[in-house]
Amino acid sequence: MADASNSDNGGEKPTFKIRRLEISDKRKGYMELLGQLTVTGSVTDDEFDQRFEEISSHGDDHLICVIEEESSGRIAGTGSVMIEKKFLRNCGKVGHIEDVVVDTKFRGKHLGKQVVEFLTDHCLAMGCYKVILDCSAEKKVFYEKCGLVNKGIQMSKYFD
Amino acid sequence: MADASNSDNGGEKPTFKIRRLEISDKRKGYMELLGQLTVTGSVTDDEFDQRFEEISSHGDDHLICVIEEESSGRIAGTGSVMIEKKFLRNCGKVGHIEDVVVDTKFRGKHLGKQVVEFLTDHCLAMGCYKVILDCSAEKKVFYEKCGLVNKGIQMSKYFD
Repeated sequence: MADASNSDNGGEKPTFKIRRLEISDKRKGYMELLGQLTVTGSVTDDEFDQRFEEISSHGDDHLICVIEEESSGRIAGTGSVMIEKKFLRNCGKVGHIEDVVVDTKFRGKHLGKQVVEFLTDHCLAMGCYKVILDCSAEKKVFYEKCGLVNKGIQMSKYFD
Repeated sequence: MADASNSDNGGEKPTFKIRRLEISDKRKGYMELLGQLTVTGSVTDDEFDQRFEEISSHGDDHLICVIEEESSGRIAGTGSVMIEKKFLRNCGKVGHIEDVVVDTKFRGKHLGKQVVEFLTDHCLAMGCYKVILDCSAEKKVFYEKCGLVNKGIQMSKYFD
């Protein structure tokens, strides 16, 4: 992946576009980027394609966005949101943001904030009454800059 | 709703069954129970039925369970879980538990723990690698008794 300070475009400032995940993004470093967040394992092309179709089948209710660095065509950032349909709050909807990560090479360019805003705007457009996410305590300040506030704690149980 | 200590079964110990939400549960106090958790608004029968069908269309990927008090046929507890499909962790899955509540009349009978275990067991059967939920700090001890541990913080943004 091109270094931001020494990229293919001859030292020009890199430009980025934000869009939905496409099936071809596996070849653009999408899984390697997720690997900066947690364990990805070795996902085959067939497994990737199948999971892509499963997620896509939910339409606007499960959106994964990516930021592509235009000169290199590499994925520089990503995040996802899943829309939950409830009965409470007049049959309200809630957006669950997950797996926000920006390539270490492209940090400090507010790409993470762009990802969160893209996902939050999607939730608003989908009629959600709120958007939520879980993070470590050290990410609190970042998400406050994105307009979120600390509301409670996350509890988890791992099966493996 | 019958008081546990003075119920229709002549003072016998109430018995409970845990099962999936059914469309007829709106008439059994399901929305009133959710009202003990947060604002429900005034959901019409048609709105309820439509939301029930939307959630049911996800099959095992969005499960709402209820505990019914058998003598009165009233809903005494509930909780939901939504299965998220990811690319990371070898295309892993995560269960998101939401909206766990037990009727104030039936508290102290471990019904909440039964709800969480029912939902957790479902996630395990669905092949999830973990189950997560958000709660207030004062619920931490309860969820620890259910086998979960505090992992991070919840951030949220309300649109209304």
